[in-house]
Amino acid sequence: MKESSRAARRARADAGATETARLETFADGVFAIAITLLILEIAVPHVETGESLGAALADQWPSYAAYMVSFITIGIMWVNHHHMFTLIQRSTHSFLMLNVLFLMPIAALPWPTALVAEYIRDHSARPVATLVYGGTMVAIAIMYNGVWRYAVHRGLLRRDVDPDAIRRASRGYLAGPTGYAVAALLALVNAWISLLLFAAFAVYWLLPVSGPRPGMLRTPEGSGEEAR
Amino acid sequence: MKESSRAARRARADAGATETARLETFADGVFAIAITLLILEIAVPHVETGESLGAALADQWPSYAAYMVSFITIGIMWVNHHHMFTLIQRSTHSFLMLNVLFLMPIAALPWPTALVAEYIRDHSARPVATLVYGGTMVAIAIMYNGVWRYAVHRGLLRRDVDPDAIRRASRGYLAGPTGYAVAALLALVNAWISLLLFAAFAVYWLLPVSGPRPGMLRTPEGSGEEAR
Amino acid sequence: MKESSRAARRARADAGATETARLETFADGVFAIAITLLILEIAVPHVETGESLGAALADQWPSYAAYMVSFITIGIMWVNHHHMFTLIQRSTHSFLMLNVLFLMPIAALPWPTALVAEYIRDHSARPVATLVYGGTMVAIAIMYNGVWRYAVHRGLLRRDVDPDAIRRASRGYLAGPTGYAVAALLALVNAWISLLLFAAFAVYWLLPVSGPRPGMLRTPEGSGEEAR
Amino acid sequence: MKESSRAARRARADAGATETARLETFADGVFAIAITLLILEIAVPHVETGESLGAALADQWPSYAAYMVSFITIGIMWVNHHHMFTLIQRSTHSFLMLNVLFLMPIAALPWPTALVAEYIRDHSARPVATLVYGGTMVAIAIMYNGVWRYAVHRGLLRRDVDPDAIRRASRGYLAGPTGYAVAALLALVNAWISLLLFAAFAVYWLLPVSGPRPGMLRTPEGSGEEAR
Repeated sequence: MKESSRAARRARADAGATETARLETFADGVFAIAITLLILEIAVPHVETGESLGAALADQWPSYAAYMVSFITIGIMWVNHHHMFTLIQRSTHSFLMLNVLFLMPIAALPWPTALVAEYIRDHSARPVATLVYGGTMVAIAIMYNGVWRYAVHRGLLRRDVDPDAIRRASRGYLAGPTGYAVAALLALVNAWISLLLFAAFAVYWLLPVSGPRPGMLRTPEGSGEEAR
Repeated sequence: MKESSRAARRARADAGATETARLETFADGVFAIAITLLILEIAVPHVETGESLGAALADQWPSYAAYMVSFITIGIMWVNHHHMFTLIQRSTHSFLMLNVLFLMPIAALPWPTALVAEYIRDHSARPVATLVYGGTMVAIAIMYNGVWRYAVHRGLLRRDVDPDAIRRASRGYLAGPTGYAVAALLALVNAWISLLLFAAFAVYWLLPVSGPRPGMLRTPEGSGEEAR
Repeated sequence: MKESSRAARRARADAGATETARLETFADGVFAIAITLLILEIAVPHVETGESLGAALADQWPSYAAYMVSFITIGIMWVNHHHMFTLIQRSTHSFLMLNVLFLMPIAALPWPTALVAEYIRDHSARPVATLVYGGTMVAIAIMYNGVWRYAVHRGLLRRDVDPDAIRRASRGYLAGPTGYAVAALLALVNAWISLLLFAAFAVYWLLPVSGPRPGMLRTPEGSGEEAR
Repeated sequence: MKESSRAARRARADAGATETARLETFADGVFAIAITLLILEIAVPHVETGESLGAALADQWPSYAAYMVSFITIGIMWVNHHHMFTLIQRSTHSFLMLNVLFLMPIAALPWPTALVAEYIRDHSARPVATLVYGGTMVAIAIMYNGVWRYAVHRGLLRRDVDPDAIRRASRGYLAGPTGYAVAALLALVNAWISLLLFAAFAVYWLLPVSGPRPGMLRTPEGSGEEAR
């Protein structure tokens, strides 16, 4: 390969990196802040001298459970966003705006988390709190699909990504909104089932089996050099 | 083009990138934090067992509306800042300081957002709250123009940016302070009109039609290599 | 060394950097936010006119002490994470997920910090508060070991890291969970001893003697060029 | 200049950049979060329907003034940190730890800011609140000098920085702790004078005249290529 053509390709790759770099930095910031703000919703319990702090802390278990599920969920969304942007090379004005909208329900998650923690033991308010929490999850999953499909249809992906892999990914991503919508609606029947499903989704996505398959990129970088 | 001269140009481009990189990182941080802190201003409503949580949540609609308008507004300011800094190559001490001042009203936005949400249904306090919110928007828009004009007049832009495009951008950016000032002052007549205009501005800037025109940069990178 | 092979090696190094770059950015964000949120747990004391603000401020000493110990502890974890990732070159889906779990107890630290500050002078609640604080420290230290061991066993380290140094590091990192577990359990005997040990650990790790030894990397970059 | 030696030099420069890059990212994160958290200390005033929200807002002027002075001060510290790290090329374990300690009073600044805003109109508490605020400023300025002097004495600066410029900078940086200490101690005489001095320092450092002189670096990048 000629020196000049390699330099040109490299320059273009650099420009592409720059194009999504600030978007990724901004998104990472929002993910990192939202995930870290979650702890502010857990109060320090108030007990008088002689009362049991251990009991008061144990009594707060819904806050810890909600904290952990939301923490893992934001973490998973970040990991998936990370994977997605290894395939996305370019950006447009509208794509930036779409990403801003995508970040809205993620940044909002501390609020439904606190809502569920507050009302999980109140049988009359539990279904509504669970529906709001599930609705936020559905919104995140829908926006995630929107960002991906926009990138695919506007040709923002790297050119060396296997079209079959893209189709498989597009189909696979639909599981998110569907699963969360079913789980959220089950709150009308029994909110505990919904909440257990949200936790189960978080644990499932955490497992290695749920990760993206290697070989999604047909050619990782431009064969010749890499094969060396 | 000779190898050595290309390397030199590239080294200079790298140095230029470094010069604004930390500024962009810092600004991205402030944008990301301000946009994510907005959720802290929405309280979890308190209802007794048996009372309707749904009604209490619905009653909080001004908080959600204010959250969404402010979230989108900060997002738009970030996208515009992002576009602006693809044209800005160098930085100076004063330019850094000016950017710090620019970030002040953006970082402050969670406070007027909470103020409007709190007093939107209080007919006597609504105009004042709306004026404060609108005043913050005007301050952001003025600072944005200040940053741009400073960069233009001190020659901090990339040399390959079309001068006509700069003039058009300078003119276009004036719409921000003007529009927000008119909308803010309308609060003295009817605060609802102001608030609807703030929301309308957010939605308008979100649309693809409002984005920067391609071809703003006369030559994307230094023609020869790119055209290949 | 031939030009083309150097370019290939460099391209691979760049790709490796990108692979952990977003993980490091995200982790840095969580570290930075958790360390900065700590200040929100310190209240501004309320005194009436004429009462001594100085006395009220002095009375809050546990908050300042807890703030400083937690601040330094998060800082140390960040520095160690930083060192660790100079050795880690690649990432996988599971490794990203593991890092998300690693960040959970770090992001949660403001809460046990506030808990200890609140109950440090309550002799009946102090042991429980100290145990919770120490338990968080143990969780952080265990996760830290987990991230390191996973990276070692899955071959995510740079290939030029000395295997003996890896073994020494793996052994050395075990001191963390052990030390914090002993300190935490001592709270059942005397919580003050635990708390002094947590502070002592923070100060010890701050000292230059505790840093990683140079020469951990057998060859810093690929000898020939560097030796020049 | 031979291609291979240029590549070697470039590789070394890249490694140097990496060495302080994560430190700068982390510091930028703390600066950005601390500056943005300041707004959380300003409360939304509570007025009943019919009461004047305008009067209640005007009554909160100390909060806005303290917000602005602290915002500008953190911004200035960030700009100065930015300038300093254009000269610092390498990092060590102890230097990272020192930077963590440097960030502690900066991250803590929202607290003394709220303290001053709360007690600025209470004549008996004002001197103490002002002393605490000023003491934080002194701590920041001392740590800033410590970071700089450590970098100079351990040879962490770029080799092409003019030694005379280093000596001038070292002398100049001493103005910070001295000025803030004098201003803080004046609180024992009259707290208003202290507070006006803090504001005056913020405004002075904001002005172009206070910036670093160009020519601090003897050779910006390594003459030959640049002179082209």
